Amino acid sequence: MTGEGLKNRGRTRADVDERRKAVEERTGTGLTNIGFLSFDPLAASKNIENMIGAVQVPLGFVGPLRINGDHASGEFLVPMATTEGALVASVNRGCSAITAAGGAAAVVVSDAMTRAPVFRVRDTRHAVEAAAWVESNFDRLRQAAEATTSHGRLLSAQPFSAGRSFYLRLSYSTGDAMGMNMATIASEAAARLVERETGAVLISVSGNLCVDKKPAAVNAVLGRGKIVLADVTIPRQVLEDRMHAVPEAVAETCFRKCAIGSSLAASLGSNAHAANMLAALYIATGQDPAQVAEGSMVTTTCEVVDGDLYISARLPCVEVGTVGGGTRLPCQSEALSMIGCVGEGKALKLAEIVGAVVLAGELSTLCAQSAGHLGSAHSKLGR
Amino acid sequence: MTGEGLKNRGRTRADVDERRKAVEERTGTGLTNIGFLSFDPLAASKNIENMIGAVQVPLGFVGPLRINGDHASGEFLVPMATTEGALVASVNRGCSAITAAGGAAAVVVSDAMTRAPVFRVRDTRHAVEAAAWVESNFDRLRQAAEATTSHGRLLSAQPFSAGRSFYLRLSYSTGDAMGMNMATIASEAAARLVERETGAVLISVSGNLCVDKKPAAVNAVLGRGKIVLADVTIPRQVLEDRMHAVPEAVAETCFRKCAIGSSLAASLGSNAHAANMLAALYIATGQDPAQVAEGSMVTTTCEVVDGDLYISARLPCVEVGTVGGGTRLPCQSEALSMIGCVGEGKALKLAEIVGAVVLAGELSTLCAQSAGHLGSAHSKLGR
Amino acid sequence: MTGEGLKNRGRTRADVDERRKAVEERTGTGLTNIGFLSFDPLAASKNIENMIGAVQVPLGFVGPLRINGDHASGEFLVPMATTEGALVASVNRGCSAITAAGGAAAVVVSDAMTRAPVFRVRDTRHAVEAAAWVESNFDRLRQAAEATTSHGRLLSAQPFSAGRSFYLRLSYSTGDAMGMNMATIASEAAARLVERETGAVLISVSGNLCVDKKPAAVNAVLGRGKIVLADVTIPRQVLEDRMHAVPEAVAETCFRKCAIGSSLAASLGSNAHAANMLAALYIATGQDPAQVAEGSMVTTTCEVVDGDLYISARLPCVEVGTVGGGTRLPCQSEALSMIGCVGEGKALKLAEIVGAVVLAGELSTLCAQSAGHLGSAHSKLGR
Amino acid sequence: MTGEGLKNRGRTRADVDERRKAVEERTGTGLTNIGFLSFDPLAASKNIENMIGAVQVPLGFVGPLRINGDHASGEFLVPMATTEGALVASVNRGCSAITAAGGAAAVVVSDAMTRAPVFRVRDTRHAVEAAAWVESNFDRLRQAAEATTSHGRLLSAQPFSAGRSFYLRLSYSTGDAMGMNMATIASEAAARLVERETGAVLISVSGNLCVDKKPAAVNAVLGRGKIVLADVTIPRQVLEDRMHAVPEAVAETCFRKCAIGSSLAASLGSNAHAANMLAALYIATGQDPAQVAEGSMVTTTCEVVDGDLYISARLPCVEVGTVGGGTRLPCQSEALSMIGCVGEGKALKLAEIVGAVVLAGELSTLCAQSAGHLGSAHSKLGR
Repeated sequence: MTGEGLKNRGRTRADVDERRKAVEERTGTGLTNIGFLSFDPLAASKNIENMIGAVQVPLGFVGPLRINGDHASGEFLVPMATTEGALVASVNRGCSAITAAGGAAAVVVSDAMTRAPVFRVRDTRHAVEAAAWVESNFDRLRQAAEATTSHGRLLSAQPFSAGRSFYLRLSYSTGDAMGMNMATIASEAAARLVERETGAVLISVSGNLCVDKKPAAVNAVLGRGKIVLADVTIPRQVLEDRMHAVPEAVAETCFRKCAIGSSLAASLGSNAHAANMLAALYIATGQDPAQVAEGSMVTTTCEVVDGDLYISARLPCVEVGTVGGGTRLPCQSEALSMIGCVGEGKALKLAEIVGAVVLAGELSTLCAQSAGHLGSAHSKLGR
Repeated sequence: MTGEGLKNRGRTRADVDERRKAVEERTGTGLTNIGFLSFDPLAASKNIENMIGAVQVPLGFVGPLRINGDHASGEFLVPMATTEGALVASVNRGCSAITAAGGAAAVVVSDAMTRAPVFRVRDTRHAVEAAAWVESNFDRLRQAAEATTSHGRLLSAQPFSAGRSFYLRLSYSTGDAMGMNMATIASEAAARLVERETGAVLISVSGNLCVDKKPAAVNAVLGRGKIVLADVTIPRQVLEDRMHAVPEAVAETCFRKCAIGSSLAASLGSNAHAANMLAALYIATGQDPAQVAEGSMVTTTCEVVDGDLYISARLPCVEVGTVGGGTRLPCQSEALSMIGCVGEGKALKLAEIVGAVVLAGELSTLCAQSAGHLGSAHSKLGR
Repeated sequence: MTGEGLKNRGRTRADVDERRKAVEERTGTGLTNIGFLSFDPLAASKNIENMIGAVQVPLGFVGPLRINGDHASGEFLVPMATTEGALVASVNRGCSAITAAGGAAAVVVSDAMTRAPVFRVRDTRHAVEAAAWVESNFDRLRQAAEATTSHGRLLSAQPFSAGRSFYLRLSYSTGDAMGMNMATIASEAAARLVERETGAVLISVSGNLCVDKKPAAVNAVLGRGKIVLADVTIPRQVLEDRMHAVPEAVAETCFRKCAIGSSLAASLGSNAHAANMLAALYIATGQDPAQVAEGSMVTTTCEVVDGDLYISARLPCVEVGTVGGGTRLPCQSEALSMIGCVGEGKALKLAEIVGAVVLAGELSTLCAQSAGHLGSAHSKLGR
Repeated sequence: MTGEGLKNRGRTRADVDERRKAVEERTGTGLTNIGFLSFDPLAASKNIENMIGAVQVPLGFVGPLRINGDHASGEFLVPMATTEGALVASVNRGCSAITAAGGAAAVVVSDAMTRAPVFRVRDTRHAVEAAAWVESNFDRLRQAAEATTSHGRLLSAQPFSAGRSFYLRLSYSTGDAMGMNMATIASEAAARLVERETGAVLISVSGNLCVDKKPAAVNAVLGRGKIVLADVTIPRQVLEDRMHAVPEAVAETCFRKCAIGSSLAASLGSNAHAANMLAALYIATGQDPAQVAEGSMVTTTCEVVDGDLYISARLPCVEVGTVGGGTRLPCQSEALSMIGCVGEGKALKLAEIVGAVVLAGELSTLCAQSAGHLGSAHSKLGR
């Protein structure tokens, strides 16, 4: 019976239950909590295989956080899913200071998902010919790519090569979807055209110049998904009252830690803990948490301006969507609903919120560390 | 009433319910699924603040995966939490091939959690003096650090400096805890001693040479948490039968994509999608998914050896624990139980399982891409 | 008298002699060899200040090297200036094999010198406005830049920003000059226009997103100066006869050393010793040897193709010119003359020669290392 | 006759002359200046092959530069060889300010040359065994390495591995030699022992984890050759009088350019133009200018301290020697003599001087850029 359950490929609640029972039996463990599911597993049929239930990740919220974005405007209560004690409380303190300061600016300055197929070419001359063909035939490439998708638009095709490996970094506008799969499918069609016309042989639709779920400078420099900029000036008094910190100390902490420390560590990006906010937001709202890998390459800066604290975050890779993927699952959809980000027309708004929340988290941690509180905050709230 | 609920600081189920209701009212959304909680929120009191419920992340499993590790030995059914369609199915295919090939080797070759306080010194001479003091007084430093912890052991203290910024990269053995908080608290004590004895002024207990939740070469080179090596040789016939791939094509894909493509992208690490497996495992088992940032710097290699496919993964930053953090939550604890990794004495075993699952995922994706199937797999199973 | 000589600001031979004498007296050393100058110091008046003579760097040559480039076509004897024993002999062996194989291909696929002024802006919104102004007024920016130069052309302006720092990466066509100074002067004019029109305050004409004389991924990815690709296929028999190596061993060496080793080292680029050839060529021909910093980010690949050895080099930053700078000095001009690269219309030819010589050096060292000869070659020929 | 001359392998002046004549004939160029040699070519017989003469690189000096080092103490006139107009004048201004401020501190905090052979192993288990063997048999490894050298001492052996590639980063004390060849020969002996005892197969004595002449984070973090720290505080008045700059503007320039700009560029190191000083010093004193590749990964910081300007430079890779290599050539030896760095017991002194000169150059350029003078300085003095 165990084998039968393990091999069961169904997606109904009964299938999930049978499969979970088989796993329980095989591993000798009880999976009661994992089996406690508020929704019909069929709803997750495009999100997972071999489903046996769900993991409940504790959900809290931060806010009200005032954001003055182009798409996100107003005060938000933002959901965060985490198991790291003190994180939500810390980000929340940052939100409180930002809101008291009148809100954070947040802007999306670029929006493009990328895929970079790799081809085998005969040699460098062949690579140059293939690149020339692409440049001369971009319209055909675009048509081939866009024939596979209703929302995707091919924006550009940037060639790279080394020896017999030829790469085409294809950038797409993907509407409100995060867009990886759309880009993958479109790129495969485009790549097949390149194959036919140039004789280059497609080796993989992803050649790691895309580059998905890896920290790479190409993305830090050129961006992937949305590039978001967020900033705020916190008046000295607000900083002292709410964060028990002074602008000079926070700026010094940011300088020694993020600017110099990250440089000595040969880091991509320089920030305090941007990945924390990204992971908690991505899990809460059904984004892909593996994209924290490149999302984490955030640059945070602090300056004392006229006695107040200016703080900014540049997020080069905010790969989020409000349709598709995990966004349609019940809990995740409710979380998106909390911030008015369900469905079409909301991806840029979501990206701005992500930028502002990262900013709040950076502010709070830099204040805490500047005041020597990091250790004690964790020992009180944390594990 | 809303304000009251939002400000509620309690941690009981009633508190959580009241808070969620306040959020529902304030945001005009229903949070029914988020409120659907199988466990008493008090169990999460050290994991989150402002709790309003939980996000259910779909949980599947892969396996049986045979692992021949020093600590993980046998066949495992491994839980993965994800919303990315096709991921579990893909990793599962990799597991099937590995198990058919007799199992994956997995070894932990280093085990140390790091924290690097940053100090302000007067100048370079002062930095040199402080470094000399540390070298001469390592025992005192160790005592100060270890006085704060029952499990942590200070292993080494490595100084770095640039101008008036002085860093001490402290490495700890942290038993079966992931160990970040233990290291933070111990490092604060050690840093205070350095302050008193050298006159260096502690600026932040974390100076980004640690470096937590950021992709940085210092960790790729020296490791953080556990450095895990995993590998397997898949016989040609097994590869053809189960993965519909041939060794030469997989090795070529790995070479052009991971080795050359990642180099041109100026990537830290070179792999196919290690972050995917890490994120899914970390969410399932209560680890910190933000640590996927550095975890993703994996190096995957393939070679054709005697006609078969050799594949390996080097994971420089497997920051996992089996006690503390999210591991004690009900679902996460059950997930750990599935692989026999609950509690004391299990962290190294967990790390080896992580290594083997990453290997399975790398194998599967490289096979699929080498066969030109990535696009079509996603269009069938995915969003 | 010493003080007088040291303060002497003249540029005639008498001035140089007086100054050298003052240095001799002050330091108590004889500088006879340094004073041995074949040319009138006035010829170097734009190349150095406080001149006291010259350093004679031994000059050898490699070749004949057959190159099948778009601009460099035929057999060349190429000058190399070095003090590293065995280098010229080694590169020469590589040339011999390449020539025997019919010659190396070499292509320039991009040609642009960059400068990136940095401005202080009020905040992120201001940075976005400044970027928008630049996009809308590129023609005015171009006119301002080009008004300062007869040969320079502004090709593009790429904005970057983080907080209150705003960068504009300006790319120029600079004819046959390496172009740094041209780009600097033009960029200052362009930057002043941006200042006037946007209120952004110019902080420095170079904001390190250029980036000159530093190893940075932005240049590895996007290139600086010329991007050169070079390759050749060496028949097995030629490799065995001339290099005492076999294709499989060379390819394996390149794989383990350049591809995997460089990745583990978190290197920018992956090659054997490209910097050696660049430095020797640059010193010989009056280029700027400090640009070896970024020039060294070369990607070398090897593959066994039909039993023969295919080898390639991608040079992302070949910053060379045939007019201006050190090229007009007597020795350097003679060295350029050896390869037919004096004056106008020769910069692309020079870049292709650089690519081919780097390829020859890579080939030779990889062959030697694959055969276990590195240590013994140095002990016979070297210091 | 041409062929004969080209094939001539002799090293006497007559051989050099004959060879040059053959090159002149073959290339149809006159090489009069290149043939103008102040010394007997036999003196360069270990420095170059196929010698046809020398390139005269203009030599200037900077100073007096006061240095308060452990090994370099006093005022120095430092030789610099360059063809970049304005460089010597600029560095000289920096020297003047430093000397007026009482001198620069300079300290060598680490001194070790590295070589990292790469081996092929069967698999990960084999790599672990080989690493264990090395750890248990370090004394034997040391004896094998040191048997090849009278001055070299093996300090440590650090294993790395990925799949079937196993690397051993061997660190040596190399006395007053730069030490690359010593390290290479010793490492080959050590590697042969590892081969015999572990069954690992030596693929190359250099596996790029050394890593020589490539910019790589492993060296930026751990250092190669000497790690040198240098700093100085320039009183406000001195800065204004001599550099026409104010501390706040210089610090802001350094912050936006070096700290933030370099981070956005994904640079290794963060400085203004350290490579310039390194290249000019290395060419003047017979060092290896190709090592500017890693030498350039300098971190420069500025701070306003009590109204004055504090500036520092961290040089992670100062790979210099005062014996061997190009140091014994006549001009280069004279240049070393100017700074009292000829022969035994002088390498650390030379390294400190390098650190102080880099500091002077950084100071000057940051001051010039902060005052908006970079463009105009080049247009007056430069090409």
